Amino acid sequence: DRIQCCAVQVEKAPSFSVGKKFQLDDIIEAQQFDRDTLSAIFEVACEMEKIEKNSPGSQVLKGYLMATLFYEPSTRTRLSFESAMKRLGGEVLTTENAREFSSAAKGETLEDTIRTIEGYSDIIVMRHFESGAAKRAAFTASIPVINAGDGPGQHPSQDDIKDYLTSKGVEWEESADLMEVASKCDVVYQTRIQRERFGERTDIYEEARGKYIVDQNVLDVMQKHAVVMHPLPRLDEITVDVDRDPRAAYFRQAKNGLYIRMALLKLLLVGW
Amino acid sequence: DRIQCCAVQVEKAPSFSVGKKFQLDDIIEAQQFDRDTLSAIFEVACEMEKIEKNSPGSQVLKGYLMATLFYEPSTRTRLSFESAMKRLGGEVLTTENAREFSSAAKGETLEDTIRTIEGYSDIIVMRHFESGAAKRAAFTASIPVINAGDGPGQHPSQDDIKDYLTSKGVEWEESADLMEVASKCDVVYQTRIQRERFGERTDIYEEARGKYIVDQNVLDVMQKHAVVMHPLPRLDEITVDVDRDPRAAYFRQAKNGLYIRMALLKLLLVGW
Amino acid sequence: DRIQCCAVQVEKAPSFSVGKKFQLDDIIEAQQFDRDTLSAIFEVACEMEKIEKNSPGSQVLKGYLMATLFYEPSTRTRLSFESAMKRLGGEVLTTENAREFSSAAKGETLEDTIRTIEGYSDIIVMRHFESGAAKRAAFTASIPVINAGDGPGQHPSQDDIKDYLTSKGVEWEESADLMEVASKCDVVYQTRIQRERFGERTDIYEEARGKYIVDQNVLDVMQKHAVVMHPLPRLDEITVDVDRDPRAAYFRQAKNGLYIRMALLKLLLVGW
Repeated sequence: DRIQCCAVQVEKAPSFSVGKKFQLDDIIEAQQFDRDTLSAIFEVACEMEKIEKNSPGSQVLKGYLMATLFYEPSTRTRLSFESAMKRLGGEVLTTENAREFSSAAKGETLEDTIRTIEGYSDIIVMRHFESGAAKRAAFTASIPVINAGDGPGQHPSQDDIKDYLTSKGVEWEESADLMEVASKCDVVYQTRIQRERFGERTDIYEEARGKYIVDQNVLDVMQKHAVVMHPLPRLDEITVDVDRDPRAAYFRQAKNGLYIRMALLKLLLVGW
Repeated sequence: DRIQCCAVQVEKAPSFSVGKKFQLDDIIEAQQFDRDTLSAIFEVACEMEKIEKNSPGSQVLKGYLMATLFYEPSTRTRLSFESAMKRLGGEVLTTENAREFSSAAKGETLEDTIRTIEGYSDIIVMRHFESGAAKRAAFTASIPVINAGDGPGQHPSQDDIKDYLTSKGVEWEESADLMEVASKCDVVYQTRIQRERFGERTDIYEEARGKYIVDQNVLDVMQKHAVVMHPLPRLDEITVDVDRDPRAAYFRQAKNGLYIRMALLKLLLVGW
Repeated sequence: DRIQCCAVQVEKAPSFSVGKKFQLDDIIEAQQFDRDTLSAIFEVACEMEKIEKNSPGSQVLKGYLMATLFYEPSTRTRLSFESAMKRLGGEVLTTENAREFSSAAKGETLEDTIRTIEGYSDIIVMRHFESGAAKRAAFTASIPVINAGDGPGQHPSQDDIKDYLTSKGVEWEESADLMEVASKCDVVYQTRIQRERFGERTDIYEEARGKYIVDQNVLDVMQKHAVVMHPLPRLDEITVDVDRDPRAAYFRQAKNGLYIRMALLKLLLVGW
């Protein structure tokens, strides 16, 4: 099955009952979600999966208009949100290159842009190059804002992750031995080594790039129930022959991202 | 109330009765509209406001297809038209960068492009960099064309405005005293000083830029019923603290532009 | 009449009967079509023409989502496909500049991109700069792929055409005498001399460009039933005064391309 939504059983709290308003006005950062809310969202995502597969032409969001306000292009993310909206019968206004094309180039503040765009749409999905931009947009807008990335704000550094895990009481350890780690863990979450972070030091990039590659050898030591995840796009950090293994979860992961986005759009616009 | 549509009372002339064809085939320039037609359009815009607020999923323009043919990008204008079309149940084909991407780059004439696009859509909203382009497009097309700006053609110079006012019998005077003007008039229509018009003379731009700024001091002398308007985007020619004053009308103005566009699309495609 | 669909009479073979699955999974190249299939598709295109003219708001493809994945811009082709989809009640996800904007810029393979996009949509219309890219996409995707051009792959050279005609048993001859050819043939299929093929040799381009021009003189010697076709955009290889002649078929040709695309989308998504 494509979504592991039944893994966590939550009793339906009153605040999650059908028809009730969603607790959040905007989706800005992961810290907004507690475990119960996440579980309830996953249940809605499961319903969304059924809608996408069985009832083409859903009208759940008919008459609603989403604006994708992208100050830097991210086609994958944009298409995922637009597909989510359209799968639910909603409509979309698109700006793929707001930074260069829009009034921003003439010096307009983000706040002024938001006050204009909120007049044209019912929800704004925004990607911006500056950390904190999504929060500013949400503060200004009288309609919901979803953060589809705001610069480094959405990409916490490794140290942040360590701090986060520690603060949540999660035990963790670092290791340079991929094979040992792979043999023990339930999830191998591989990521692209981001060339753009290395600047001119392409030598360091090249060294880092080839170091940990998930291939058939890694699969061989992984547990049967474990999965390989990846946010995509991938380069060579997972070899193509891994794709055929049922534990390769990254394309399912992308598809599940669609269901989560459908769920969030539904929750923000019409509630539980 | 957000639209001042009741300010002018017009008796409904027979040509404006519901179901009748709209008098205009295309919307090219302000000179096409007499006062009666304008008033009647404002009434339709009021209906449009109700549609936008109360009945999401209007089907007034269901099955109609609008092409936004933009030879230079103008995200704000484009999104406003696309929102207007979609709020009425219509659909949109978008070209944000026709100059660079389209057949224009291969040397195709505007007329040939129009003859192709009119085969794909029911109405064309065009922005072009050449004065007169909208009129040429309207002459060629067998479907309605709306001018969303054609170079300097849409931006009459100050001298033009003076001539226009004089020709209409409107008395006016020039003044360099913003405070005095503000204290007497009903509408302060502020505009952005357009840097792109100054070329290399950034010194003159900088001088012009700081000269007339609408701020709390200006508000203090303005009449209670007066409003501050601005076509947006603004830079610093209206300070942000003005936004909180009920006389700050510029964001309402943008929203009302949406209703006018909804009205024009409705009128051109299905009539009064 | 705008489509010559009745020129070829075909008995409806069982495989073309209404409700049956379309024989093709993807549309990649002209060689996929035999004459019977082509004729049957033309009949569907005739139905599509009626839908476009008489029943705005067709719902034949309601609930279906088409992704236009364009690695190089081609506004005319893109709008034609998007119009076709929307005329049938379907919805569209657009990427006009996938090469620069998408994950391709980060080094993602076409196959990985396709596996993501197929999760967001029901059919992919792709334009790519590399010959063979459409076939690779179709091989990867579990949903239909339509090739909207893949580099030189879609533009067979003149030698290819000669070989193709010979292989099909079609007699042909070359001539440098436009007037003689025009007076004898049923179809004058003019094309743009593609400057981009001449590289730095603009002198040869200029020489080739002015050589064969279809103008009133050519029309004068053409047979009454013959037509002038052109894939558009045109430069000066057909003079504008030819447009008024009923034998000028190129704008009808563009419109008919829309009906063919409507037919192909309908056939691939819901069958005969």
